[in-house]
Amino acid sequence: MTKVIADITMSLDGFVTGPDPDLEHGLGVGGEPLHAWAFSDDPVDADQLRAGTELSGAVVMGRRLFDIIDGPGGWNDDVGYGARETGRPPFFVVTHSAPEHRRLQELDFTFVTDGIAPAIEQARSAARDKNAVIMGGGDVIAQALAAGLVDQLHLHVSPIVLGTGTPLFHGAGRIELRQVDVQVSSTATHVTYEIA
Amino acid sequence: MTKVIADITMSLDGFVTGPDPDLEHGLGVGGEPLHAWAFSDDPVDADQLRAGTELSGAVVMGRRLFDIIDGPGGWNDDVGYGARETGRPPFFVVTHSAPEHRRLQELDFTFVTDGIAPAIEQARSAARDKNAVIMGGGDVIAQALAAGLVDQLHLHVSPIVLGTGTPLFHGAGRIELRQVDVQVSSTATHVTYEIA
Repeated sequence: MTKVIADITMSLDGFVTGPDPDLEHGLGVGGEPLHAWAFSDDPVDADQLRAGTELSGAVVMGRRLFDIIDGPGGWNDDVGYGARETGRPPFFVVTHSAPEHRRLQELDFTFVTDGIAPAIEQARSAARDKNAVIMGGGDVIAQALAAGLVDQLHLHVSPIVLGTGTPLFHGAGRIELRQVDVQVSSTATHVTYEIA
Repeated sequence: MTKVIADITMSLDGFVTGPDPDLEHGLGVGGEPLHAWAFSDDPVDADQLRAGTELSGAVVMGRRLFDIIDGPGGWNDDVGYGARETGRPPFFVVTHSAPEHRRLQELDFTFVTDGIAPAIEQARSAARDKNAVIMGGGDVIAQALAAGLVDQLHLHVSPIVLGTGTPLFHGAGRIELRQVDVQVSSTATHVTYEIA
Protein backbone atom coordinates (compact mmCIF):
# COMPACT_ATOMS: atom_id res chain seq x y z
CA MET A 1 0.00 0.00 0.00
CA THR A 2 1.65 3.20 -1.18
CA LYS A 3 2.06 5.92 1.42
CA VAL A 4 2.82 9.56 0.73
CA ILE A 5 5.76 10.42 2.97
CA ALA A 6 7.30 13.83 3.48
CA ASP A 7 10.95 13.12 4.26
CA ILE A 8 13.29 15.98 5.12
CA THR A 9 15.94 17.14 7.56
CA MET A 10 15.20 20.06 9.86
CA SER A 11 16.91 22.01 12.60
CA LEU A 12 15.55 21.81 16.12
CA ASP A 13 13.76 25.10 15.43
CA GLY A 14 12.13 23.85 12.25
CA PHE A 15 14.28 25.21 9.42
CA VAL A 16 15.23 23.06 6.43
CA THR A 17 17.94 25.46 5.25
CA GLY A 18 19.89 28.34 6.73
CA PRO A 19 19.38 31.86 5.34
CA ASP A 20 19.95 32.77 1.68
CA PRO A 21 20.00 29.37 -0.02
CA ASP A 22 21.06 29.54 -3.65
CA LEU A 23 22.07 27.20 -6.46
CA GLU A 24 25.54 26.62 -5.11
CA HIS A 25 24.58 26.64 -1.43
CA GLY A 26 21.41 24.59 -1.28
CA LEU A 27 21.44 24.55 2.52
CA GLY A 28 21.92 28.31 2.77
CA VAL A 29 24.50 30.13 4.85
CA GLY A 30 25.74 27.90 7.64
CA GLY A 31 23.16 25.19 6.98
CA GLU A 32 25.66 22.37 6.38
CA PRO A 33 25.34 20.88 9.90
CA LEU A 34 21.75 19.97 8.99
CA HIS A 35 22.95 17.13 6.78
CA ALA A 36 25.84 15.89 8.95
CA TRP A 37 23.84 12.74 9.74
CA ALA A 38 23.74 11.78 6.06
CA PHE A 39 27.54 11.62 5.97
CA SER A 40 28.10 10.02 9.39
CA ASP A 41 29.49 6.56 10.11
CA ASP A 42 26.71 5.75 12.53
CA PRO A 43 24.86 2.60 11.38
CA VAL A 44 21.54 4.10 12.50
CA ASP A 45 22.07 6.99 10.09
CA ALA A 46 23.20 4.68 7.29
CA ASP A 47 20.09 2.59 7.88
CA GLN A 48 17.89 5.66 7.59
CA LEU A 49 19.38 6.48 4.21
CA ARG A 50 19.23 2.90 2.95
CA ALA A 51 15.68 2.20 4.12
CA GLY A 52 14.44 5.51 2.75
CA THR A 53 15.92 4.77 -0.66
CA GLU A 54 14.73 1.17 -0.75
CA LEU A 55 11.15 2.06 0.09
CA SER A 56 11.01 5.03 -2.25
CA GLY A 57 9.12 4.17 -5.43
CA ALA A 58 8.77 7.73 -6.68
CA VAL A 59 9.91 11.16 -5.52
CA VAL A 60 8.24 14.58 -5.57
CA MET A 61 10.21 17.82 -5.30
CA GLY A 62 9.77 21.52 -5.91
CA ARG A 63 11.43 23.43 -8.70
CA ARG A 64 13.93 25.26 -6.50
CA LEU A 65 15.11 21.97 -5.05
CA PHE A 66 15.41 20.50 -8.56
CA ASP A 67 17.51 23.46 -9.66
CA ILE A 68 19.87 22.92 -6.74
CA ILE A 69 20.10 19.17 -7.34
CA ASP A 70 20.63 19.68 -11.07
CA GLY A 71 23.01 22.59 -10.43
CA PRO A 72 26.80 22.58 -10.23
CA GLY A 73 26.90 21.73 -6.51
CA GLY A 74 24.10 19.16 -6.77
CA TRP A 75 23.95 15.42 -7.16
CA ASN A 76 26.92 13.61 -8.64
CA ASP A 77 28.37 10.10 -8.74
CA ASP A 78 28.81 10.11 -4.99
CA VAL A 79 25.78 11.99 -3.68
CA GLY A 80 22.09 11.63 -4.38
CA TYR A 81 19.75 9.09 -5.93
CA GLY A 82 21.46 7.26 -8.75
CA ALA A 83 24.83 7.42 -7.05
CA ARG A 84 25.46 4.43 -4.81
CA GLU A 85 21.76 3.67 -4.59
CA THR A 86 20.06 0.39 -5.37
CA GLY A 87 17.30 1.92 -7.43
CA ARG A 88 16.52 5.07 -9.32
CA PRO A 89 12.96 6.14 -8.75
CA PRO A 90 11.11 8.43 -11.14
CA PHE A 91 11.11 12.07 -10.01
CA PHE A 92 8.17 14.48 -10.31
CA VAL A 93 9.09 18.15 -10.17
CA VAL A 94 6.40 20.71 -9.32
CA THR A 95 7.10 23.71 -11.54
CA HIS A 96 5.46 26.45 -13.59
CA SER A 97 7.34 25.33 -16.69
CA ALA A 98 9.84 22.62 -17.57
CA PRO A 99 13.49 23.66 -17.85
CA GLU A 100 14.91 23.87 -21.36
CA HIS A 101 17.79 21.57 -20.54
CA ARG A 102 19.21 19.76 -17.58
CA ARG A 103 22.48 18.32 -16.35
CA LEU A 104 21.27 15.03 -14.85
CA GLN A 105 20.22 13.27 -18.04
CA GLU A 106 20.55 9.80 -16.56
CA LEU A 107 17.71 10.28 -14.08
CA ASP A 108 13.98 10.09 -14.86
CA PHE A 109 12.47 13.54 -14.30
CA THR A 110 8.87 14.51 -15.10
CA PHE A 111 7.94 18.19 -14.83
CA VAL A 112 4.43 18.65 -13.50
CA THR A 113 2.97 22.06 -14.28
CA ASP A 114 -0.53 21.77 -12.83
CA GLY A 115 0.24 21.76 -9.13
CA ILE A 116 1.29 19.74 -6.13
CA ALA A 117 -1.78 17.48 -6.00
CA PRO A 118 -1.33 16.07 -9.54
CA ALA A 119 2.38 15.67 -8.90
CA ILE A 120 1.70 13.59 -5.79
CA GLU A 121 -0.97 11.58 -7.62
CA GLN A 122 1.42 10.76 -10.47
CA ALA A 123 4.11 9.81 -7.98
CA ARG A 124 1.68 7.59 -6.08
CA SER A 125 0.83 5.69 -9.28
CA ALA A 126 4.45 5.42 -10.33
CA ALA A 127 5.51 4.16 -6.89
CA ARG A 128 3.61 0.86 -7.33
CA ASP A 129 3.97 -1.01 -4.03
CA LYS A 130 6.60 1.36 -2.64
CA ASN A 131 6.17 4.85 -1.19
CA ALA A 132 5.83 8.24 -2.84
CA VAL A 133 8.31 10.50 -1.07
CA ILE A 134 8.10 14.29 -1.01
CA MET A 135 11.68 15.37 -0.40
CA GLY A 136 11.18 19.13 -0.31
CA GLY A 137 11.62 21.98 -0.31
CA GLY A 138 9.94 23.17 2.83
CA ASP A 139 7.28 25.09 0.94
CA VAL A 140 6.25 22.06 -1.15
CA ILE A 141 5.94 19.91 1.98
CA ALA A 142 3.99 22.64 3.79
CA GLN A 143 1.61 22.92 0.81
CA ALA A 144 1.12 19.17 0.72
CA LEU A 145 0.47 19.11 4.47
CA ALA A 146 -2.00 21.99 4.24
CA ALA A 147 -3.85 20.16 1.45
CA GLY A 148 -4.05 16.95 3.50
CA LEU A 149 -2.00 15.00 0.95
CA VAL A 150 0.61 13.55 3.33
CA ASP A 151 0.26 10.23 5.19
CA GLN A 152 3.53 10.28 7.11
CA LEU A 153 6.12 12.78 8.16
CA HIS A 154 9.65 11.45 8.39
CA LEU A 155 11.95 14.05 9.89
CA HIS A 156 15.63 13.99 10.62
CA VAL A 157 16.12 16.46 13.45
CA SER A 158 19.66 17.79 13.56
CA PRO A 159 21.21 19.21 16.73
CA ILE A 160 21.28 22.86 15.76
CA VAL A 161 19.13 25.95 16.25
CA LEU A 162 19.47 28.03 13.08
CA GLY A 163 17.32 30.99 14.10
CA THR A 164 16.52 31.85 10.49
CA GLY A 165 16.24 30.19 7.10
CA THR A 166 13.56 28.28 5.20
CA PRO A 167 10.87 27.12 7.63
CA LEU A 168 9.35 23.67 7.17
CA PHE A 169 5.87 24.25 8.49
CA HIS A 170 5.06 27.77 7.32
CA GLY A 171 1.43 27.80 6.21
CA ALA A 172 0.86 24.15 7.01
CA GLY A 173 -1.66 25.02 9.73
CA ARG A 174 -2.44 22.90 12.76
CA ILE A 175 -1.76 19.19 12.36
CA GLU A 176 -2.30 16.53 15.01
CA LEU A 177 0.18 13.70 14.70
CA ARG A 178 0.73 10.20 15.98
CA GLN A 179 4.34 9.40 16.82
CA VAL A 180 5.03 5.98 15.27
CA ASP A 181 8.81 5.60 15.32
CA VAL A 182 11.91 7.30 16.69
CA GLN A 183 15.44 6.21 15.82
CA VAL A 184 18.33 7.84 17.64
CA SER A 185 21.83 8.12 16.25
CA SER A 186 24.88 9.95 17.52
CA THR A 187 24.18 12.81 15.10
CA ALA A 188 20.40 13.20 14.85
CA THR A 189 16.97 12.06 15.97
CA HIS A 190 14.93 10.43 13.21
CA VAL A 191 11.21 10.72 13.94
CA THR A 192 8.24 9.30 12.04
CA TYR A 193 4.72 10.62 12.55
CA GLU A 194 1.42 9.68 10.98
CA ILE A 195 -1.03 12.45 10.34
CA ALA A 196 -3.77 11.81 12.92
CA MET B 1 28.17 20.41 39.67
CA THR B 2 25.16 22.59 39.07
CA LYS B 3 23.95 22.85 35.49
CA VAL B 4 21.58 25.45 34.12
CA ILE B 5 18.93 23.50 32.23
CA ALA B 6 16.14 24.94 30.13
CA ASP B 7 13.34 22.39 30.42
CA ILE B 8 10.14 22.86 28.45
CA THR B 9 7.62 21.14 26.18
CA MET B 10 7.34 22.23 22.58
CA SER B 11 5.36 21.30 19.50
CA LEU B 12 7.19 19.77 16.54
CA ASP B 13 7.21 23.25 15.01
CA GLY B 14 8.74 24.89 18.06
CA PHE B 15 5.82 26.48 19.91
CA VAL B 16 5.49 26.24 23.68
CA THR B 17 1.86 27.39 23.72
CA GLY B 18 -0.91 27.70 21.18
CA PRO B 19 -2.22 31.17 20.26
CA ASP B 20 -3.67 33.63 22.81
CA PRO B 21 -2.45 32.18 26.10
CA ASP B 22 -4.01 33.85 29.12
CA LEU B 23 -4.27 33.35 32.88
CA GLU B 24 -6.89 30.66 32.61
CA HIS B 25 -5.51 29.03 29.46
CA GLY B 26 -1.79 28.92 30.00
CA LEU B 27 -1.23 26.74 26.95
CA GLY B 28 -3.29 29.03 24.73
CA VAL B 29 -6.07 28.00 22.37
CA GLY B 30 -5.79 24.31 21.53
CA GLY B 31 -2.41 23.92 23.20
CA GLU B 32 -3.45 21.18 25.64
CA PRO B 33 -1.99 18.29 23.56
CA LEU B 34 1.46 19.75 24.29
CA HIS B 35 1.31 18.47 27.86
CA ALA B 36 -0.38 15.11 27.21
CA TRP B 37 2.89 13.35 28.04
CA ALA B 38 2.88 14.79 31.57
CA PHE B 39 -0.42 13.05 32.27
CA SER B 40 0.28 9.76 30.48
CA ASP B 41 0.66 6.30 32.04
CA ASP B 42 3.85 5.63 30.10
CA PRO B 43 6.69 4.88 32.55
CA VAL B 44 9.14 6.78 30.30
CA ASP B 45 7.05 9.91 30.72
CA ALA B 46 6.65 9.37 34.45
CA ASP B 47 10.40 8.93 34.71
CA GLN B 48 10.97 12.23 32.91
CA LEU B 49 8.78 14.04 35.42
CA ARG B 50 10.32 12.30 38.43
CA ALA B 51 13.94 12.72 37.34
CA GLY B 52 13.37 16.36 36.42
CA THR B 53 11.89 17.11 39.83
CA GLU B 54 14.50 15.15 41.76
CA LEU B 55 17.42 16.89 40.05
CA SER B 56 15.89 20.34 40.29
CA GLY B 57 17.50 22.37 43.08
CA ALA B 58 16.05 25.71 42.04
CA VAL B 59 13.69 26.96 39.34
CA VAL B 60 13.66 30.12 37.22
CA MET B 61 10.53 31.37 35.48
CA GLY B 62 9.18 34.49 33.83
CA ARG B 63 6.45 36.67 35.29
CA ARG B 64 3.77 35.62 32.83
CA LEU B 65 4.38 31.98 33.67
CA PHE B 66 4.27 32.78 37.39
CA ASP B 67 0.95 34.55 36.94
CA ILE B 68 -0.48 31.48 35.20
CA ILE B 69 0.88 29.09 37.82
CA ASP B 70 -0.36 31.30 40.66
CA GLY B 71 -3.66 31.94 38.86
CA PRO B 72 -6.99 30.14 39.26
CA GLY B 73 -6.15 27.42 36.70
CA GLY B 74 -2.57 27.00 37.94
CA TRP B 75 -0.86 24.66 40.33
CA ASN B 76 -2.90 22.92 43.00
CA ASP B 77 -2.68 19.88 45.27
CA ASP B 78 -2.50 17.59 42.25
CA VAL B 79 -0.45 19.52 39.71
CA GLY B 80 2.87 21.28 39.96
CA TYR B 81 5.83 21.40 42.31
CA GLY B 82 4.74 20.96 45.87
CA ALA B 83 1.91 18.67 44.90
CA ARG B 84 2.99 15.04 44.83
CA GLU B 85 6.63 16.00 44.55
CA THR B 86 9.46 14.87 46.77
CA GLY B 87 10.95 18.30 47.18
CA ARG B 88 9.97 21.91 46.85
CA PRO B 89 12.74 23.90 45.25
CA PRO B 90 13.03 27.68 45.64
CA PHE B 91 11.58 29.58 42.68
CA PHE B 92 13.08 32.72 41.14
CA VAL B 93 10.66 34.82 39.11
CA VAL B 94 12.04 37.34 36.61
CA THR B 95 9.77 40.36 36.82
CA HIS B 96 9.70 44.16 36.70
CA SER B 97 8.09 44.29 40.14
CA ALA B 98 6.96 41.77 42.74
CA PRO B 99 3.22 41.04 42.91
CA GLU B 100 1.36 42.51 45.88
CA HIS B 101 -0.07 39.18 46.92
CA ARG B 102 -0.09 35.62 45.71
CA ARG B 103 -2.17 32.49 46.01
CA LEU B 104 0.58 29.88 46.44
CA GLN B 105 1.81 30.90 49.90
CA GLU B 106 3.28 27.48 50.67
CA LEU B 107 5.94 27.70 47.96
CA ASP B 108 9.20 29.64 48.17
CA PHE B 109 9.09 32.43 45.55
CA THR B 110 11.75 35.12 45.14
CA PHE B 111 10.99 37.97 42.74
CA VAL B 112 14.08 39.10 40.87
CA THR B 113 13.75 42.56 39.38
CA ASP B 114 17.20 43.08 37.85
CA GLY B 115 17.04 40.65 34.95
CA ILE B 116 17.43 37.10 33.77
CA ALA B 117 21.17 36.81 34.50
CA PRO B 118 20.90 37.62 38.24
CA ALA B 119 17.87 35.32 38.49
CA ILE B 120 19.85 32.44 37.02
CA GLU B 121 22.82 33.24 39.25
CA GLN B 122 20.64 33.21 42.38
CA ALA B 123 19.07 29.95 41.26
CA ARG B 124 22.47 28.41 40.62
CA SER B 125 23.58 29.26 44.15
CA ALA B 126 20.36 28.04 45.70
CA ALA B 127 20.47 24.76 43.76
CA ARG B 128 23.54 23.55 45.69
CA ASP B 129 24.53 20.21 44.10
CA LYS B 130 21.36 19.94 42.02
CA ASN B 131 20.43 21.76 38.81
CA ALA B 132 18.98 25.22 38.20
CA VAL B 133 16.04 24.72 35.86
CA ILE B 134 14.57 27.42 33.64
CA MET B 135 11.02 26.26 33.07
CA GLY B 136 9.78 29.07 30.81
CA GLY B 137 8.14 30.83 29.27
CA GLY B 138 9.58 30.65 25.81
CA ASP B 139 10.83 34.24 25.88
CA VAL B 140 12.76 33.76 29.12
CA ILE B 141 14.44 30.64 27.75
CA ALA B 142 15.23 32.39 24.44
CA GLN B 143 16.78 35.30 26.37
CA ALA B 144 18.86 32.94 28.48
CA LEU B 145 20.02 31.08 25.37
CA ALA B 146 20.89 34.32 23.58
CA ALA B 147 22.92 35.41 26.62
CA GLY B 148 24.82 32.11 26.73
CA LEU B 149 23.49 31.26 30.19
CA VAL B 150 22.17 27.77 29.45
CA ASP B 151 24.21 24.55 29.75
CA GLN B 152 21.58 22.07 28.61
CA LEU B 153 18.33 22.09 26.71
CA HIS B 154 15.84 19.47 27.81
CA LEU B 155 12.87 19.43 25.45
CA HIS B 156 9.75 17.34 25.43
CA VAL B 157 8.64 17.29 21.80
CA SER B 158 4.93 16.57 21.48
CA PRO B 159 3.40 15.12 18.33
CA ILE B 160 1.58 18.18 17.09
CA VAL B 161 2.20 21.02 14.65
CA LEU B 162 0.53 24.10 16.12
CA GLY B 163 1.26 26.55 13.30
CA THR B 164 1.05 29.52 15.65
CA GLY B 165 1.53 30.40 19.30
CA THR B 166 4.47 31.31 21.52
CA PRO B 167 7.74 30.32 19.81
CA LEU B 168 10.54 28.84 21.90
CA PHE B 169 13.56 30.03 19.98
CA HIS B 170 12.55 33.52 18.85
CA GLY B 171 15.58 35.76 19.20
CA ALA B 172 17.83 33.01 20.52
CA GLY B 173 20.06 33.20 17.44
CA ARG B 174 22.13 30.37 16.04
CA ILE B 175 23.11 27.68 18.55
CA GLU B 176 25.15 24.58 17.81
CA LEU B 177 24.15 21.68 20.02
CA ARG B 178 25.39 18.26 21.02
CA GLN B 179 22.68 15.63 21.31
CA VAL B 180 23.33 13.81 24.59
CA ASP B 181 20.18 11.84 25.32
CA VAL B 182 16.88 10.91 23.69
CA GLN B 183 14.10 9.07 25.52
CA VAL B 184 11.10 7.91 23.55
CA SER B 185 7.67 7.35 25.04
CA SER B 186 4.35 6.57 23.43
CA THR B 187 3.35 10.23 23.68
CA ALA B 188 6.49 12.31 23.12
CA THR B 189 10.20 12.41 22.34
CA HIS B 190 12.31 13.72 25.21
CA VAL B 191 15.59 15.15 23.92
CA THR B 192 18.56 16.53 25.82
CA TYR B 193 21.16 18.72 24.16
CA GLU B 194 24.28 20.39 25.49
CA ILE B 195 25.16 23.78 24.11
CA ALA B 196 28.23 23.12 21.95
